[in-house]
Amino acid sequence: MKKIMNAPENYVNEMLEGIYLAHPDYVTHAGENLRCLVTSKIVEGKVGIATGGGSGHLPLFLGYVGKGMLDGCSVGDVFQSPSAEQMLEVTKRIDTGAGVLYIYGNYNGDIFNFEMAAEMADMEEGIKVEQVVAGEDVASPQAAPGEKNTRRGVAGIFFVYKCAGGAATAGKELSEVKRIAEKAASNVRTMGVALTPCTVPRVGYPGFEIAEDEMEIGMGIHGEPGIRRGKLESADEITTEMLEKILKDIPYESGEEAAVLVNGLGATPLDEQYIVARRVHQILKERGIEVYRYYVGEYVTSIEMAGLSISLLKLDEELKGYLDAPADTPFFKQGNV
Amino acid sequence: MKKIMNAPENYVNEMLEGIYLAHPDYVTHAGENLRCLVTSKIVEGKVGIATGGGSGHLPLFLGYVGKGMLDGCSVGDVFQSPSAEQMLEVTKRIDTGAGVLYIYGNYNGDIFNFEMAAEMADMEEGIKVEQVVAGEDVASPQAAPGEKNTRRGVAGIFFVYKCAGGAATAGKELSEVKRIAEKAASNVRTMGVALTPCTVPRVGYPGFEIAEDEMEIGMGIHGEPGIRRGKLESADEITTEMLEKILKDIPYESGEEAAVLVNGLGATPLDEQYIVARRVHQILKERGIEVYRYYVGEYVTSIEMAGLSISLLKLDEELKGYLDAPADTPFFKQGNV
Repeated sequence: MKKIMNAPENYVNEMLEGIYLAHPDYVTHAGENLRCLVTSKIVEGKVGIATGGGSGHLPLFLGYVGKGMLDGCSVGDVFQSPSAEQMLEVTKRIDTGAGVLYIYGNYNGDIFNFEMAAEMADMEEGIKVEQVVAGEDVASPQAAPGEKNTRRGVAGIFFVYKCAGGAATAGKELSEVKRIAEKAASNVRTMGVALTPCTVPRVGYPGFEIAEDEMEIGMGIHGEPGIRRGKLESADEITTEMLEKILKDIPYESGEEAAVLVNGLGATPLDEQYIVARRVHQILKERGIEVYRYYVGEYVTSIEMAGLSISLLKLDEELKGYLDAPADTPFFKQGNV
Repeated sequence: MKKIMNAPENYVNEMLEGIYLAHPDYVTHAGENLRCLVTSKIVEGKVGIATGGGSGHLPLFLGYVGKGMLDGCSVGDVFQSPSAEQMLEVTKRIDTGAGVLYIYGNYNGDIFNFEMAAEMADMEEGIKVEQVVAGEDVASPQAAPGEKNTRRGVAGIFFVYKCAGGAATAGKELSEVKRIAEKAASNVRTMGVALTPCTVPRVGYPGFEIAEDEMEIGMGIHGEPGIRRGKLESADEITTEMLEKILKDIPYESGEEAAVLVNGLGATPLDEQYIVARRVHQILKERGIEVYRYYVGEYVTSIEMAGLSISLLKLDEELKGYLDAPADTPFFKQGNV
């Protein structure tokens, strides 16, 4: 894949320099390290929310730092976890005494580093940190009831950020913001499809191969193996298969409400995302499921992968309230802040 | 290129169905024809602003219909002009007595159909229509002074929409909204680079070929030939070449201000767009040009083409005011409306 970049080893830092130059009203870095990104407008007394993970998923994570959503994030190299020290730096900067909630995807490297950061924040700085690990990819194996979640975190984390951010901005305390984040995380399910691979800049060749007439249902956002590979099918067939898997995993009663996110993975045009949204609507309507709100676009990408994912968040009145709350970040604006 | 679609002949209408289902608060269609899109919230007494052109450029045009920007648009098939009848339908729906301004890109098919629609609106409906044709692609040939503009309209039209929309929303009359649109159109310049072709769904094969190690500087958004084809260079080299061509075409004095749009053409990740924004900032700083605001992302695409464009809008106090005005559309939100 051709890339418009300079030296691959500078890819992430130069991207970050561009973000800081383009959005000075929204974000700055905590300390010298460009990879520790925090909001320009710390809100005193509010629970801080931090996230992080590997680069290569823009607008995740950086694009959601701002009013009503996140207060900071730390990023690693492309598809690499940031360090515990980075997370600690962000944590120190965003805590104003009310504690900090970490929300991150269910990947071993991130879990290891964020847990260590939480421990350091508590021991060294006296900052109370709680954690919510988001994992909602229906294509990855499900743990037995009561066991630790084994599913990958993908695009549905957007909903977790949005609801938790709404709760924190409403002045809720740490335990309550955590409860809302957990509720959103447990109510969301995602399924994806990939048509092409993507290339990590420092690696220089695609992470996998896929034939010109094939697709892979359920592939993860770092190219993790999906459920099945087959001939490319029609948008309606693909959407039906993906949505059935989601609805089997988290059944809806007729009359229940959902928020829907149709997310482009990088190279797939918005046109195709809307064609899929149309079919999602038809299927949900047939089942009596009301769509409270649609989000269509690139929310969580895999560099230049072609493909998309569908996420459904099951809603109740409480989550609807937090979903409706205004937000203003470089990549997500809603309502009047 | 693989596409997530159903029958190619339904591509545009199914995309439109998705848009109407996803954004009912923002847009609806005028009459039965899905391809005549209008705002759900007509503002009485305001000058109406309409645009249109071929599909395949989302979020252009549909994504900019809403408060503070456009009131309607008509679209054709992918890369095909809409008909004069469609434009007339949109015009009738959005006129509330203050007249309608058409803003569209400098392409023969669009000019022909929009001029006919303007004539029909005047003759048959008594609606006063003015027109501004946006053409700012520095890579296309420039007409002699005083001659009709021969340049292609590309991503810079976003700035024309934004400023004209600000003026119309401020209650300016038709001649004044037209003057502002013309001023924005004459102050903006764009240069693009393409790395891969794109495929019109009904055609089924790419519009051109380009080698795996090549780029084309100055290619148009429908694959029109650019200025030169060569080996893929670094982001800094590409940015420098593109920006020099823009700054030679519309010179800036030290201390003058610009708005900058770094626009992804479809398959190019945001990361790369920010790497380019970083270099744009360095070059403008060296020349003493102040950047008033950055816009980075996919604003005007070419289906799944890889590449990007840089647009500069030269600002004065008047344009800054209209650029700052709040807007709320499916794809562009700014400030509190």
